[in-house]
Amino acid sequence: MHVPIVKSILTSNDQIAAENKAVLDQHGVVAVNLMASPGAGKTSLILATARSLPAALRPAVIEGDLASSIDAELMAKNGIPVVQINTGGNCHLDAPMIRSAFPHLPFGEFELLLIENVGNLVCPANFALGAHLALVVASVPEGHDKPYKYPGMFAAADVVVLNKVELKEVFEFDPDYFWRGVQMLKPEAPIFEVSCRTGAGVAEWAAWLAQHVAGVATQNT
Amino acid sequence: MHVPIVKSILTSNDQIAAENKAVLDQHGVVAVNLMASPGAGKTSLILATARSLPAALRPAVIEGDLASSIDAELMAKNGIPVVQINTGGNCHLDAPMIRSAFPHLPFGEFELLLIENVGNLVCPANFALGAHLALVVASVPEGHDKPYKYPGMFAAADVVVLNKVELKEVFEFDPDYFWRGVQMLKPEAPIFEVSCRTGAGVAEWAAWLAQHVAGVATQNT
Repeated sequence: MHVPIVKSILTSNDQIAAENKAVLDQHGVVAVNLMASPGAGKTSLILATARSLPAALRPAVIEGDLASSIDAELMAKNGIPVVQINTGGNCHLDAPMIRSAFPHLPFGEFELLLIENVGNLVCPANFALGAHLALVVASVPEGHDKPYKYPGMFAAADVVVLNKVELKEVFEFDPDYFWRGVQMLKPEAPIFEVSCRTGAGVAEWAAWLAQHVAGVATQNT
Repeated sequence: MHVPIVKSILTSNDQIAAENKAVLDQHGVVAVNLMASPGAGKTSLILATARSLPAALRPAVIEGDLASSIDAELMAKNGIPVVQINTGGNCHLDAPMIRSAFPHLPFGEFELLLIENVGNLVCPANFALGAHLALVVASVPEGHDKPYKYPGMFAAADVVVLNKVELKEVFEFDPDYFWRGVQMLKPEAPIFEVSCRTGAGVAEWAAWLAQHVAGVATQNT
């Protein structure tokens, strides 16, 4: 007897992810799947990016957390449309969760959807959501060896942002070693160094993102 | 038709975990399951702890990583017996993996087994290994909201160590908010604040650990 359960689940997730992407395209929305360790600064990067985007590119956010709505409340306080998904202990978002958030989003009032995945450098990489761009956020205090230890996540990245760069000396962080690791896994991924706390590098990153979003939007029309 | 696959896997893991614990008890070894986010400082804490333990309490280490043997090489360089487990993409260690490491450990030459789990604040909490103590390591740069966002992990902790405490001011880290979150989930868990970089607090933590190990060892004889 053959019971192909895992395959079915993944196939079904991929199928719903494709449907999610079609819905987003239809509404002229480009979506970014933000993945990172707990505390790397996904929420801070979303807030800093939102402040630096051109006015014509309005963001909305989906917050994925095991529990709590701490980040979503922060988004709402900053005037960003937001939907909270509590995964109930699940270690990653999946495509059906994103689909269930769509009816709560103000489509027509935003062009960029930033999806903050559960803080986890392993599992989220294995579940497509229907996003157009996979962003991996790393941070200096985590150490420069992360690409070597979590290769699956960095191999899944379309772009990498390194946060908290003002602490490189404190943590004896070797950027060359870090970037060599990333490039070994994903040679074509653009790389940005930022500090959400000081604001360094955020404008460059936001400018690239805005340009990338415009490129995807043009392809879809 | 009833196909209770998940239940079988968990039951089997729990059973092998119990067998692992019996093997450890037989050899007079107390095991600690170290769980944390990527880059919280598990490896640094193991090295700092090993240096601060009484000479009669000899450590050995099992390193769990998706890939690479960076941490295991560091242990070996420091003269600590070590076995590397590569999970091949799996987001946590499990009891069968620990069992498979046992034949490679020099039983009789150590009393304390420090098991460094995969960096992940979600999945490792759900898989018993056969350890006597669950240690959750958090770190200041991750932010003071982690217990609220990852309650399952902190609820599983027997003891919590907060690392990188010298950076509290830089990150506007509110220790009261952090500890209230931990105590809400695990009121009886002892809490230690350390800096593996400066050495602050490590002696107190290592003294507590040595005393706890002696207590477990006495119960088992």
